[in-house]
Amino acid sequence: MTNPVLVEVVRGAAVESRHRGAVAICDTEGADYLAIGDVATPIFPRSAVKPFQALLVVESGAADAYGLSDQALAIACASHGGEPAHVVAVEGFLACAGLDGGALECGAHWPLHQASARALAHDHKAPSALHNNCSGKHAAMLCVACKLGIDHRHYIDAEHPVQREIRATLEGAFGVRLDTYGIDGCSLPTYPVPLRNLARAFARFGTGRHLGAQRYAAARRLMTSCAEHPLYVGGTDRFCTAVLGGLRNRAFVKVGAEGVIGGVVPELGLGIAVKCDDGGQRAAEVIMAALLMRMLPLSAEEGAFLEARVRPPMKNWNGLVVGELRPVSALIGPSARGTGNVAP
Amino acid sequence: MTNPVLVEVVRGAAVESRHRGAVAICDTEGADYLAIGDVATPIFPRSAVKPFQALLVVESGAADAYGLSDQALAIACASHGGEPAHVVAVEGFLACAGLDGGALECGAHWPLHQASARALAHDHKAPSALHNNCSGKHAAMLCVACKLGIDHRHYIDAEHPVQREIRATLEGAFGVRLDTYGIDGCSLPTYPVPLRNLARAFARFGTGRHLGAQRYAAARRLMTSCAEHPLYVGGTDRFCTAVLGGLRNRAFVKVGAEGVIGGVVPELGLGIAVKCDDGGQRAAEVIMAALLMRMLPLSAEEGAFLEARVRPPMKNWNGLVVGELRPVSALIGPSARGTGNVAP
Repeated sequence: MTNPVLVEVVRGAAVESRHRGAVAICDTEGADYLAIGDVATPIFPRSAVKPFQALLVVESGAADAYGLSDQALAIACASHGGEPAHVVAVEGFLACAGLDGGALECGAHWPLHQASARALAHDHKAPSALHNNCSGKHAAMLCVACKLGIDHRHYIDAEHPVQREIRATLEGAFGVRLDTYGIDGCSLPTYPVPLRNLARAFARFGTGRHLGAQRYAAARRLMTSCAEHPLYVGGTDRFCTAVLGGLRNRAFVKVGAEGVIGGVVPELGLGIAVKCDDGGQRAAEVIMAALLMRMLPLSAEEGAFLEARVRPPMKNWNGLVVGELRPVSALIGPSARGTGNVAP
Repeated sequence: MTNPVLVEVVRGAAVESRHRGAVAICDTEGADYLAIGDVATPIFPRSAVKPFQALLVVESGAADAYGLSDQALAIACASHGGEPAHVVAVEGFLACAGLDGGALECGAHWPLHQASARALAHDHKAPSALHNNCSGKHAAMLCVACKLGIDHRHYIDAEHPVQREIRATLEGAFGVRLDTYGIDGCSLPTYPVPLRNLARAFARFGTGRHLGAQRYAAARRLMTSCAEHPLYVGGTDRFCTAVLGGLRNRAFVKVGAEGVIGGVVPELGLGIAVKCDDGGQRAAEVIMAALLMRMLPLSAEEGAFLEARVRPPMKNWNGLVVGELRPVSALIGPSARGTGNVAP
């Protein structure tokens, strides 16, 4: 199946590049609200599943036992920019369990937030695992191990008790057996899941249906923490942070690498999963913004906020607008306020 | 026309992402050696045409009049990393015509070479137009204006005499009228050209056929400068620099933004033009490496050099190999040493 072009990159009067992809929007029962392209073949969800991986830090009792802050719970779900506030939050997170950055097994990289990377260099410092965009998630896993009284070393291995527990959580959420996996950028396993199952999992995460009271309480606690502290979910100029800040608790979204974004619109009971074929993050963001604009009845302010992300301008080094990204009309669909099934 | 998948991004045992694209390889008469996908619809060649834009700095007599070094001629063709050596070269280039970085109209950006960007920050400095990856090309245009006794201000405008001259050069090279254009990242016009015409233009550039003695002498001088100073054409860890260094004067290649690469294999009399649909640079590089491997009879050393670029490993933040990029078999084609027409 050839997925359709969903986003065009326009320069002057011409289309310069094209991004193909697939979209699944479905309810808590897995019924399609919208299905574009291949929503049945498993894809690697990457960091889009961080909120599901983070459930365990609440459900295990670690969050309460260690008195984790809402910022810590937000950064447990994050792909953060390695900004100073993120590093402080992860250090504090680890300290709650008597650990420090040395326990992290995610590897080090320069902060994704370029100004923070330059500030580090400016101060003659090298990046550590604390700056890794996944360090909050790893801190959560370490806290779980400590709470359960398990040796935390090698917590990144697929067969470590913490990862086995998380795989069980993901299998429940996705409704599929997770027998195979790839290794993610931060060395954790990433399990392939069909886009439709990912969308359904987000629908359940955001509404609690088929989730059980305890798990829904954990999911709500995580979503509330993210909505109240969006800067900890991504960072300056990052998509998740912008959407969480702009739409507050009307939508919850989480990006993953290679063009994946998952999300849920709780008031509609609909989960969303996007995968850009070529891994293009810029396109996945346009797709998600267009879908949210299509689905949600919006205030003028919310509409203006999303519109800027549906057709983001491309500026050159002199600040001139030389083009834009734009979603194809099939993606924009009938004007918002959508309920019921809509054909792609 | 839907271009085929040319590069797969593999994680573990599964394909995670896919890049589609088109490839034109043809001789100096425009006869196809290989045509994959849409080679007839114009695409923006972006910085892949810098060698053609640079012809004027030689043909105008500016290179001789100002005693430009081979490094200067190499950086006139470059999309450089903004490394210290690049900045020094462009400053020296401008100084030859009595100018400095203040004359550049390309805009400023942080060096593409991350370590150089961090070194700037470390020294409490901000980037200037000299760090712009296109500053060498702009220096060449400024030198042309000075040599011709023309006011150099607004040399970036499509109707400035320098740009009119360059457009005429490009029309001759491409064999098409260039009536429309987009604005490039550095504010210069970028004229759309069919991939097949771009490949033919490179074939002629590299062999001199249909070029005229004077233009071929200019082209050879530029290519020789690039082959002898590959670091000035890109920089540390950059594709053009690697290929020019690894294959010496057996192949000349130049990348452009949004997944474009042009090149020529002079000994085969064949030009190459690649466009990745989605603008993915990583895929365009794999495609070009695979094509060169397919076309050229290689020494063991050259083969090993290219092979590493045909299937580059993907490593994660712990340095583990978690996947690779790989060209599809249709791209690799029959084992190298190709002459004559080969079906995709």
